[in-house]
Amino acid sequence: MLNPVKVGILGLGTVGGGTVHVLQRNAEEIARRAGRGIVVTHACAKELNKTHPYSTDEMVLTTQLSEVVSNPEVDIVIELLGGTTIAREMMLQAIANGKHVVTANKALIAKHGNDIFAAAQEKGVMVAFEAAVAGGIPIIKAVREGLAGNKIEWIAGIINGTSNFILTEMRDKGSQFADVLAEAQRLGYAERDPAFDIEGVDAAHKLTILASLAFGIPLQFEKVYMEGITKISPEDVQYASELGYIIKHLGITKRTDNGIELRVHPTLVPNKRLLANVDGVMNAVLVQADALGQSLYYGAGAGALPTGSSIVADLVDVTRTLTTDPGNRVPHLAFQPNALVDLPILPIEEIESSYYLRLSAWDKLGVMAQVTNILSDNGISIEALIQKEPICGAAHVSVVMLTHKVVEKQVNKAIQTIEKLDGISGQVTRIRLEMLDG
Amino acid sequence: MLNPVKVGILGLGTVGGGTVHVLQRNAEEIARRAGRGIVVTHACAKELNKTHPYSTDEMVLTTQLSEVVSNPEVDIVIELLGGTTIAREMMLQAIANGKHVVTANKALIAKHGNDIFAAAQEKGVMVAFEAAVAGGIPIIKAVREGLAGNKIEWIAGIINGTSNFILTEMRDKGSQFADVLAEAQRLGYAERDPAFDIEGVDAAHKLTILASLAFGIPLQFEKVYMEGITKISPEDVQYASELGYIIKHLGITKRTDNGIELRVHPTLVPNKRLLANVDGVMNAVLVQADALGQSLYYGAGAGALPTGSSIVADLVDVTRTLTTDPGNRVPHLAFQPNALVDLPILPIEEIESSYYLRLSAWDKLGVMAQVTNILSDNGISIEALIQKEPICGAAHVSVVMLTHKVVEKQVNKAIQTIEKLDGISGQVTRIRLEMLDG
Repeated sequence: MLNPVKVGILGLGTVGGGTVHVLQRNAEEIARRAGRGIVVTHACAKELNKTHPYSTDEMVLTTQLSEVVSNPEVDIVIELLGGTTIAREMMLQAIANGKHVVTANKALIAKHGNDIFAAAQEKGVMVAFEAAVAGGIPIIKAVREGLAGNKIEWIAGIINGTSNFILTEMRDKGSQFADVLAEAQRLGYAERDPAFDIEGVDAAHKLTILASLAFGIPLQFEKVYMEGITKISPEDVQYASELGYIIKHLGITKRTDNGIELRVHPTLVPNKRLLANVDGVMNAVLVQADALGQSLYYGAGAGALPTGSSIVADLVDVTRTLTTDPGNRVPHLAFQPNALVDLPILPIEEIESSYYLRLSAWDKLGVMAQVTNILSDNGISIEALIQKEPICGAAHVSVVMLTHKVVEKQVNKAIQTIEKLDGISGQVTRIRLEMLDG
Repeated sequence: MLNPVKVGILGLGTVGGGTVHVLQRNAEEIARRAGRGIVVTHACAKELNKTHPYSTDEMVLTTQLSEVVSNPEVDIVIELLGGTTIAREMMLQAIANGKHVVTANKALIAKHGNDIFAAAQEKGVMVAFEAAVAGGIPIIKAVREGLAGNKIEWIAGIINGTSNFILTEMRDKGSQFADVLAEAQRLGYAERDPAFDIEGVDAAHKLTILASLAFGIPLQFEKVYMEGITKISPEDVQYASELGYIIKHLGITKRTDNGIELRVHPTLVPNKRLLANVDGVMNAVLVQADALGQSLYYGAGAGALPTGSSIVADLVDVTRTLTTDPGNRVPHLAFQPNALVDLPILPIEEIESSYYLRLSAWDKLGVMAQVTNILSDNGISIEALIQKEPICGAAHVSVVMLTHKVVEKQVNKAIQTIEKLDGISGQVTRIRLEMLDG
């Protein structure tokens, strides 16, 4: 058997520890698969006096990043620093030093992947990032290799476990968003500053990557439309349920004749769909492709060991192709670098979707005639409508409508007009709805 | 760009036509991914005077298999002949001629894969078979590469679309097995001779392959326990539903301390599980792995284009590793050939499962005391029990029980004793039950 491949790891936190744990615990299985061992020989941690449960006598522990990325003994660097500044610098240094890199850093790939891959291409090294999207689910491999014969039409994914946990709890317990968020923070499912998760930024990073893999376009994080789950009310969760839908926070990217849709937002999904039944912190990605049709990939989207699972899979892949000539490796973004096409990304106003609309009407009959006229004037037809009688003494009724598919700007125009009506109280709630039916 | 890779195809039926269709329709996308074109230059069909919708002027059509497998121009042979005699011979000839092979032939791989892979290994060529398990779902790639860091604990899959379609219809319409089978035949979901599907043979072929990929064991089709869906009654479907379960035909393989379980049979599954909600002809495979936990892969398990999708993915993979030294390619069975371990396969009597038991009792009270004593004597404890009062005049009641986990031979012994009781009418129906909870 060949000598073990030597790995240097930047960051020994949760994911770093999980990765080393998986490599050690499954060392025998991994070597039986890869044909040689994969061993962490160098690790950079924040402090050395802390106990690192998976450090071994053979592992050089350091606080100096450069001792790993510049070390001639290291074949592959695992970057788990997080963030996009030092992590970017270290990754580029590792590449410049001719090292292959494995990373779980979705923000870094989404924002700087184009440059990083170009640098890697030039040096003939690989940058692997399975762990950057949907944690342990091998979704990058599935889209990049498993569906290589397909023209991918769209992808819709639950790719942020924190948001999915909060929405699941809101549905199961009828709770308010803020209460569930506090609970999620207590359980460690949400960060103390949860903005990245609940505002959709984290999902947008992952969606950026999926879109590039699916359509062969450069990474364009700055063009993703982002909307989080902070405004979802128990009322909307309940009404959606009455209509046969579940609200999920989805990342959606779709190829249309006019360009690529790239959007992250709460979405009503028919409750019969598998994707609607992905609960708690779990992730799932649904892919519509022209030859295969629909396929779905489900699993843990975060956590030390699931993320470690993806990182080790990348290590095995990289190990196998160490001697492959770079031109025959799987391209970073699924398509050959010279075959990426800069398709336009559609502004959110130009996307097509169905919509859930909820409004408060003071005077049911007259107002509803006005509302339906406005919708019709804007080319919006109604698929379903429910009215909720006023609760003890309240003078207004809640009206909930589902529309057929329409271009978003038409809905925005209609809403603006509706909100000006005398009989309408407050704002119209609008949530996008996807049938996910191909 | 490099010259296109030249492919010869054996068989231009449904899947062959679908494969050529996918290659042609998505030629541009495929070349953008693979870095070069993939073109069918030679095709062997049963008759030449029939119209072959996807044949082109550049494609040599022949009725002679040897004109493809021995043709020096052909780089990769796609074997779509079916069966295990001529297909085996042709595959070995292609390998002997130094050609890589892609196949959808699950029977051939399950029964003769060990020899075929050995021959391929010796010649330094690849045999790829993503299409052999679960049609278009990239499950081989997921298990073989995506989960390479894991110790896989078990796999449970809906891997025969015909059986799943029949069970779904029986549940949704309360129909008899025979009626739904006839309907499935009318719709083209079941063959005129449906034995391979409904008796579990097809699922056993696929499970054999999954087990080898998961555990690094040689292919051992002859050791799979097989039970089809022909004895499932609408009554059992209904009672299962009342208890919160759905009956699915599953292939299950599990690593235990005593050996590997390898079994195909109808199974009660909690109705909350995603796998329980995979309906109609769709397939899904649930994998329990030590680092990742549970992951699920869902999609079309058959059909011209979905199967073509997997075949083309294999073609792209093979194309990319044409110049890779064989030792660094992904091993055929996920583990290096010299690292396969011949773990014992457990006889079905030795497996552990929970059970659904249904019996007809003539005299409720006295008999039930006897039954529960017999179960208890055999170490079987009851998790749930329902009794169905006799329907207008019938003298017997149906009693349905769910047991906790127990070794199967204990259940068999108990059933034998129970069936001899005076108060018991006819046979005890026994269906295995899996919680699928890790």
